[in-house]
Amino acid sequence: MSETAVQSVAAEVDDWLARFDDALTREDAEAAAELFLDDSFWRDLIAFTWNIKTVENPDGVRDMLEHTLAHTRPRNWRTSEEPTAAEGVTEAWIEFETEAGRGNGHLRLKDGKAWTLLTALYELKGHEEPKGAERPKGVQHGANRDRLTWMEERRKEAEELGYTSQPYVLVVGGGQGGIALGARLRQLSVPTIIIERNERAGDSWRKRYKSLCLHDPVWYDHLPYLKFPANWPVFSPKDKIGDWLEMYTRVMELNYWGSTTAKSARYDDAKKEWTVVVDRDGEEITLTPKQLVLATGMSGKPNVPEIPGADVFQGDQHHSSQHPGPDAYKGKQAVVIGSNNSAHDICAALWEAGADVTMVQRSSTHIVRSDTLMDVGLSALYSEQAVEAGMTTEKADMTFASLPYRIMHEFQIPLYDEMRERDQDFYERLERAGFLLDFGEDESGLFMKYLRRGSGYYIDVGASELVANGDIKLKTGQVVRLTEHAVVLEDGTELPANLVVYATGYGSMNGWAADLISQEVADKVGKVWGLGSDTAKDPGPWEGEQRNMWKPTQQEALWFHGGNLHQSRHYSLYLALQLKARAEGTPTPVYGLQEVHHTS
Amino acid sequence: MSETAVQSVAAEVDDWLARFDDALTREDAEAAAELFLDDSFWRDLIAFTWNIKTVENPDGVRDMLEHTLAHTRPRNWRTSEEPTAAEGVTEAWIEFETEAGRGNGHLRLKDGKAWTLLTALYELKGHEEPKGAERPKGVQHGANRDRLTWMEERRKEAEELGYTSQPYVLVVGGGQGGIALGARLRQLSVPTIIIERNERAGDSWRKRYKSLCLHDPVWYDHLPYLKFPANWPVFSPKDKIGDWLEMYTRVMELNYWGSTTAKSARYDDAKKEWTVVVDRDGEEITLTPKQLVLATGMSGKPNVPEIPGADVFQGDQHHSSQHPGPDAYKGKQAVVIGSNNSAHDICAALWEAGADVTMVQRSSTHIVRSDTLMDVGLSALYSEQAVEAGMTTEKADMTFASLPYRIMHEFQIPLYDEMRERDQDFYERLERAGFLLDFGEDESGLFMKYLRRGSGYYIDVGASELVANGDIKLKTGQVVRLTEHAVVLEDGTELPANLVVYATGYGSMNGWAADLISQEVADKVGKVWGLGSDTAKDPGPWEGEQRNMWKPTQQEALWFHGGNLHQSRHYSLYLALQLKARAEGTPTPVYGLQEVHHTS
Repeated sequence: MSETAVQSVAAEVDDWLARFDDALTREDAEAAAELFLDDSFWRDLIAFTWNIKTVENPDGVRDMLEHTLAHTRPRNWRTSEEPTAAEGVTEAWIEFETEAGRGNGHLRLKDGKAWTLLTALYELKGHEEPKGAERPKGVQHGANRDRLTWMEERRKEAEELGYTSQPYVLVVGGGQGGIALGARLRQLSVPTIIIERNERAGDSWRKRYKSLCLHDPVWYDHLPYLKFPANWPVFSPKDKIGDWLEMYTRVMELNYWGSTTAKSARYDDAKKEWTVVVDRDGEEITLTPKQLVLATGMSGKPNVPEIPGADVFQGDQHHSSQHPGPDAYKGKQAVVIGSNNSAHDICAALWEAGADVTMVQRSSTHIVRSDTLMDVGLSALYSEQAVEAGMTTEKADMTFASLPYRIMHEFQIPLYDEMRERDQDFYERLERAGFLLDFGEDESGLFMKYLRRGSGYYIDVGASELVANGDIKLKTGQVVRLTEHAVVLEDGTELPANLVVYATGYGSMNGWAADLISQEVADKVGKVWGLGSDTAKDPGPWEGEQRNMWKPTQQEALWFHGGNLHQSRHYSLYLALQLKARAEGTPTPVYGLQEVHHTS
Repeated sequence: MSETAVQSVAAEVDDWLARFDDALTREDAEAAAELFLDDSFWRDLIAFTWNIKTVENPDGVRDMLEHTLAHTRPRNWRTSEEPTAAEGVTEAWIEFETEAGRGNGHLRLKDGKAWTLLTALYELKGHEEPKGAERPKGVQHGANRDRLTWMEERRKEAEELGYTSQPYVLVVGGGQGGIALGARLRQLSVPTIIIERNERAGDSWRKRYKSLCLHDPVWYDHLPYLKFPANWPVFSPKDKIGDWLEMYTRVMELNYWGSTTAKSARYDDAKKEWTVVVDRDGEEITLTPKQLVLATGMSGKPNVPEIPGADVFQGDQHHSSQHPGPDAYKGKQAVVIGSNNSAHDICAALWEAGADVTMVQRSSTHIVRSDTLMDVGLSALYSEQAVEAGMTTEKADMTFASLPYRIMHEFQIPLYDEMRERDQDFYERLERAGFLLDFGEDESGLFMKYLRRGSGYYIDVGASELVANGDIKLKTGQVVRLTEHAVVLEDGTELPANLVVYATGYGSMNGWAADLISQEVADKVGKVWGLGSDTAKDPGPWEGEQRNMWKPTQQEALWFHGGNLHQSRHYSLYLALQLKARAEGTPTPVYGLQEVHHTS
């Protein structure tokens, strides 16, 4: 842009922010709403709503402000860098503050009015994290006869917390989600215990099939506070990410209880407190946290279909999450039921180990080649080129967060059109092999499938070639029964099998709540994940945000946390701040608590 | 500076670099030497000399170039950022390349001639580290029946290296020095084993007295590749830095043999190979590395004075490095012989634990208050303010490295004058308590003492107040003998004692070579550390660089590595590149191999 153009763009943004600020200061919700386009979106991450909430159009903005302005007292709106303009849209990074904290966000203007606005709280006043110039000193200088060393303090905390003192937060599940949240809560001085059924942090990765590597690239996967070094591989092998999580847990000083399972939990409405019975390596301990976070995996509980004859089948059978790897199946006949990520990875590993492998595809699957996905889908925000162009992880996360879910597919469709074009030969070969392909009901591809249902796709790292060339045999149709030595399909095909792997996906995460708390609470909370897009496995009505994730649920003091490493990193911030505010007694009136339309 | 001034400064540097480049390209050492002031310094870190070497004045420059130009073939000199000028000195950050690699450095011009020049090789052509855009992919996409997973490859390497295959480098000592070097060698694909007598990485910190914290601040202490996060304490407690080193060793995939000691080593001049016998957790293993690095601590072996009566003393007695901490000495009488860092820390910890403590000061000591040292001595390069002003660790290291040792004290003296002024009251109180103070023979303070002798100072974090107010009792003089229950000083004073701590420092690092290899090799290599400043414990003649550190020694294939975290970080780069070049058969003709003037 010319210097004059830059000035005029800056003036446009400054003018909008000044009018917005003025309307908010006067508590004039109507005037503020008039600054938004008829088709517009305001996504708020706990700054106004103490919720993760997108409101739409001037009506939505007005209603939200009428309910939040008086206590939020937003002010001091400003840009944090030079705004830009392209194709009729002006974009600006913004900062502001509220009564409770400091926020940042992003604004898109069209014709002088707001098209999209993102507002996000990033710290609470009076509870800023001790980092940079405010980092702890580490040593206490001077002489002090009551001094406890760092190690003595850590040991004391480890001995007392959960026994003679109680955690404010209990996190059930010590994968990347629980760990990232735990790190943030530690920095915010919220007493927290993370429990994990596996012995060591990272085991939830280590124990999966041996060829597993992350399907997301390193730039997408950083944890809070401590980024992977520049020599870290693009796609982390599972044991390597396991080691990283283990060391992260240690250096972040988390109270991490391995070999611990939660047996039961119930909430006392009067005491505002959970009673959670856990088994810690054989010892039963009762914890009474004020807040309970289920971070047991966004995939929820394994779905194992009930197939007639499963009880008579003589070979091995297990869900993909329990698959031990291919080493025992060399020369054996394996049938993998399913055609998503796990099914493909497991088929390829079995084939590599010398098994005879058949994949049973029950419905169409979306396939994207990994390199293509990186180049076309992610490289603008999460890639070495993005890093070199000055893109930080934090800014990439906020850019991603600034796109309202309602219109996100519109941004995604052209990318997947490009991918389909680029890999036309590849897709044709797959179809010739009989593979049923899709790109999502609205052709919006992988990321929307992930957000809507968390399944239905494979990021190809090599297995598709084996399917296309017939090394992995492909059958299409439903499984009707097992016999002693075979899998039988609806068309009568019998597939001899020494091994059946159910790569049949997972249920909703509130299934964990049913097991741990009660079916009643699980139903009260309802389905977890998905947007209400009215596509397969994500029924309407439209919800606007992912159901129940990182935000208040219909069950007081019960929270769900999880997702991929990107989501675990970014949204753990907002969940941690919500928990910290409650720990400190900061008022947190929730606007627009989600209603429940589906119980699973 | 005005824009015109900026241009003229840039032109001055460009002009100098062009003339320098021209002279070097013509292999005209004389013409290049004429570009240097009569009083000038060229410090080279392996780019020209395959040595760590400072030459002085045009004569020194000419001689060095006459011996190195033909094979170095330096070229492509350029600035990497805008030069600056102040007080008659123009400063520029530069880059260049040689036949073997790429280099960077720093130039100071006065009156159009070079006053100081730093040249440093940072990578070898054809052996660049795989990072950023060149990072490993992690996963091998595609199908491959011979695939080894990351974990299988790591296990295979761990099983084979040292048994069926031999390391190119053996590093003896797995503290921060060995670990930082090991990380760099791993990135350069040089097969390396690090052996460490303690069980776990970090134990060399953990096992020291319990109140120990790093005396250097976090900004000074980063390891290569992976920086401490922004929430890391300023002064790391010993167990916390121990944990960091342990996890670093793990995630950097080092071949780290804990519980392993080196029993003997000898070099075969014909085979150009070491034979090193090690005890690995009870198993005797013979290793045959091509290169042997002693990273056993720059402090060398503990100095325990031979005091008559030590054999009859009935209490506990040990060197400071073996001191277990104060817990067993509550209510007991402790005498600590020495008055440097360890002596002060141990005295304070004993006092805090309720012991009756006497410090025996045998000679004057330099004391600087920690806060003052941070503010006045380090903040320009290593502090949060420096970080906020855009100073990176790498640039700080290079800035530090750009000051020739010959004149470094001139830069240090004013800082220590300022510190003395600022803390005048503090020093007066110490002197009133009878404490013998000094600021170094030339008043140049702590850092010069560190470089010259590695001892003679205390960074005050609280113990000095206890000395000043008499809580720690102070006696001055030499110890002449021990009795069954007391320490006796030369003036006849008897100090009743249940515990005697010898905080009496360390010998030269070549003492390790004497133990491990032979006295002959130790004498051939000579004294390690120090500059030849002709001050206490650092006898002349002037050497120009620290003796034997990170550079070729008189014993082929024997290297010394160590120092504080800053040195371990920065100089491990040059040592790693020297080892890599030898591993690859790159010619490494050494200019100016140091002569030996002292055997210890």
